[in-house]
Amino acid sequence: MPDFQLHPQLEADTLAVANLPLCALRLMNDVRFPWFILVPRRTGMRELADLLPGDQIQLLAEINQAARILGELFQPDKLNIAALGNMVPQLHIHVIARFKTDSAWPKPVWGVGVAEPYDVGKDTVLLARIHPLLSNFSCD
Amino acid sequence: MPDFQLHPQLEADTLAVANLPLCALRLMNDVRFPWFILVPRRTGMRELADLLPGDQIQLLAEINQAARILGELFQPDKLNIAALGNMVPQLHIHVIARFKTDSAWPKPVWGVGVAEPYDVGKDTVLLARIHPLLSNFSCD
Repeated sequence: MPDFQLHPQLEADTLAVANLPLCALRLMNDVRFPWFILVPRRTGMRELADLLPGDQIQLLAEINQAARILGELFQPDKLNIAALGNMVPQLHIHVIARFKTDSAWPKPVWGVGVAEPYDVGKDTVLLARIHPLLSNFSCD
Repeated sequence: MPDFQLHPQLEADTLAVANLPLCALRLMNDVRFPWFILVPRRTGMRELADLLPGDQIQLLAEINQAARILGELFQPDKLNIAALGNMVPQLHIHVIARFKTDSAWPKPVWGVGVAEPYDVGKDTVLLARIHPLLSNFSCD
């Protein structure tokens, strides 16, 4: 079984946050929406059902953790959680903080406008706020 | 605790399929996309994290079952699984069979075009194909 490799499109669109027990936790590089991507570090996964049952339960725990962090940091009006993968085939789960004032509300965020990357330094500030909330996990 | 009541918008947009141990399983009344909606039969739920841990695990099992049924009946190119809830606040999970030939591909289906309800009788034919795949569960 080859080592896990993050899909190049996910690598390009996101910033590394940490490696959780199952997933690479990534931050979408788009200041418009606080938006995590969880990528199970297993090769050849495309659908949720491709994961072993134990991995699915762990994924659920990590989705909850990502949601809790967004809740603590941003107090969103709603969370959006989704596994789509129509464009990037590697299994990945979106966990997005949504606000009634955001530029896509109440529509989903995918395909709305153009991503606005974090200014250099501001991403570091946000990552520094996220990391203490992940204290039980190893960070890249 | 009041009895569970399906949100009127979900009631209007979907057809009853079955009551699973946790969720009401509904079929979106839209012939364009084979599309299940799972609604946990618990009152006052809005976010995934509002569910007790045991209910979350059961929800995961029912998402897998809905996905498996769509896979068996339609052999989709991809499944889309999502909890959004920006418009209808009652917690509900979309499980959608997607095809490279469908009218929204590769975009998400939400907000694309106008739902095309099943012809009378055709919904019954589809429900009759779904029900045997749910044989362990009570149906409404």
